[in-house]
Amino acid sequence: MAHTSFTGGMTGQWRVTSIATLVGPPLASVEALAISQAPAVDGAWRLTGVASYVRYVERAERQALVSRQAGLGRTDAVCAALIPIAKSQAWWDMTQDERRQIFEGKSRHIAASLKYLPAIARQLYHCRDLGEPFDFLTWFEFAPEHEPAFEELLAGLRSAEEWRYVTREIDIRLTRDAQG
Amino acid sequence: MAHTSFTGGMTGQWRVTSIATLVGPPLASVEALAISQAPAVDGAWRLTGVASYVRYVERAERQALVSRQAGLGRTDAVCAALIPIAKSQAWWDMTQDERRQIFEGKSRHIAASLKYLPAIARQLYHCRDLGEPFDFLTWFEFAPEHEPAFEELLAGLRSAEEWRYVTREIDIRLTRDAQG
Repeated sequence: MAHTSFTGGMTGQWRVTSIATLVGPPLASVEALAISQAPAVDGAWRLTGVASYVRYVERAERQALVSRQAGLGRTDAVCAALIPIAKSQAWWDMTQDERRQIFEGKSRHIAASLKYLPAIARQLYHCRDLGEPFDFLTWFEFAPEHEPAFEELLAGLRSAEEWRYVTREIDIRLTRDAQG
Repeated sequence: MAHTSFTGGMTGQWRVTSIATLVGPPLASVEALAISQAPAVDGAWRLTGVASYVRYVERAERQALVSRQAGLGRTDAVCAALIPIAKSQAWWDMTQDERRQIFEGKSRHIAASLKYLPAIARQLYHCRDLGEPFDFLTWFEFAPEHEPAFEELLAGLRSAEEWRYVTREIDIRLTRDAQG
């Protein structure tokens, strides 16, 4: 699987507008974020993940997601967020059915996300098995008028039972030029 | 997560007695296998994986497994097998419930394995997300008198529906000294 690197530094397609540390150690403040398939540019930090196979989504849910979701790179989607998170050992020690029960049974992660499609495009990158400092990187893209919807989506995720297992979370907001 | 490397070459704790290619390209013939947490030794090839969190096992199954399984490194377990496999894109394109249905519903992978515990110790390493040539490395350890049981276990796995998705498989057999 191809790895994707997010390099925070002086250059990149995306300008960083804010970096908020919600839980755990912070990341250094940077001006720009470069996204690349290989670690090609230097930076203050680099987070790498892999757009891997689905771990919890079931067939009917995927059909619902695919029928509504939009791809990355839409011309009007000039706002983005990168949310790296790590989850506790208690999360990883659970079995598949226990994690799924919290993920969808209690937290309704997938169902709640459907409401915000196609306005908010999303891509999940896995990084726990890569020996990275975070377990997941989630990338969101949206047009400026959908920022309130994005805040609502995030508030929903953060209030869910699943998020009680989050031991580190950074919220990085970004913008780019419409032609970028 | 710590990565584990299996390096095939001239030196290592385990002597290689055979390397059989069942599907796909072969691996070079080597005399010995070294197992290390870091890629410390040179060799003809190196396969790396991570003993990651469980992807399919459910709580009741884990309780049954844990109550019966033995650890690696038992003094009398001087026989081992390393079975690297890759699975097809069709497997990885399935959703979680579809893979689980084949894995346990049709192939009864976990249930069939219980029968061979504690005689055959087993450790699964994931490597698909690491960009490795294989998706999984499975390591088995057993005493010489349990080799027939191990062959039966393998024959069961290979005849199951899950194995129809295997696109590459190598079967490496090894021995070590009882004090090794």
